[in-house]
Amino acid sequence: MVDILHRIGVEHTTPDVVYEALTSADRLAGWWTADTRGSGEVGGVLEFRFPPVGGFDMQVLEAVPGKRVTWRVVDGPAEWIGTTVDWELRQDGDWRIVLFTHAGWAEPGEFMHHCSTKWASFLLSLKQLVETGAGAPAPRDVQISNWH
Amino acid sequence: MVDILHRIGVEHTTPDVVYEALTSADRLAGWWTADTRGSGEVGGVLEFRFPPVGGFDMQVLEAVPGKRVTWRVVDGPAEWIGTTVDWELRQDGDWRIVLFTHAGWAEPGEFMHHCSTKWASFLLSLKQLVETGAGAPAPRDVQISNWH
Repeated sequence: MVDILHRIGVEHTTPDVVYEALTSADRLAGWWTADTRGSGEVGGVLEFRFPPVGGFDMQVLEAVPGKRVTWRVVDGPAEWIGTTVDWELRQDGDWRIVLFTHAGWAEPGEFMHHCSTKWASFLLSLKQLVETGAGAPAPRDVQISNWH
Repeated sequence: MVDILHRIGVEHTTPDVVYEALTSADRLAGWWTADTRGSGEVGGVLEFRFPPVGGFDMQVLEAVPGKRVTWRVVDGPAEWIGTTVDWELRQDGDWRIVLFTHAGWAEPGEFMHHCSTKWASFLLSLKQLVETGAGAPAPRDVQISNWH
């Protein structure tokens, strides 16, 4: 098992604003993909679509305001199904720290390398959304390679 | 052992331009840190400095033009010493693909999470340097958190 790990800090904000960006479909649509639907409550399913190439369905396993959000991938690319995406939130002075773990990958293939870099760019989009009001969700996301 | 993995694609370029950006101190200074010295040849040591906080010394283990570059960290933060940084290059149509692996971390601590996201932003700086002529090396690098 290998994991994708990231850490960002969001300045001058409160736990709840970052938490909302991870649990509200409207706010998720502001940094990951504009085509986001569903419920970010525990037991709900969030549907993320990236037309025309597909997307991900995430079941919400945990959602503790200001502290933690955990999703399990229930539909999407074969490599993603059954993996978990975990967001740990905490305060460090003026900064909201986000520790990100996408765990449970079967092997460190080229697609996993791609997803790691892509997650980093979406985390920076989340940071921008909260700090400036405008993120870069798909289809306006940063292109990192021929795989988009 | 846990690894940091990334993948980027650089458009409309040749293997050698990306290879040069990984082996020439002048070109490395264009995307990672402006304060870069030393030799990128096999057996050489590259010195990357990030004033005022320190830096990394990398011994070059492998340098195969257009194919692969591998460094071993011989000085820097304790978590980095003895780890390896590997760059695999290949062509995919019009794209130069870079597969990046920073291997040999003892444990997936918070600093490793930070370094993973920071590597992604520096890989995008490398891509920019080759595609546009201007990267974002330290001290002009993208700030991702309170740890810079």
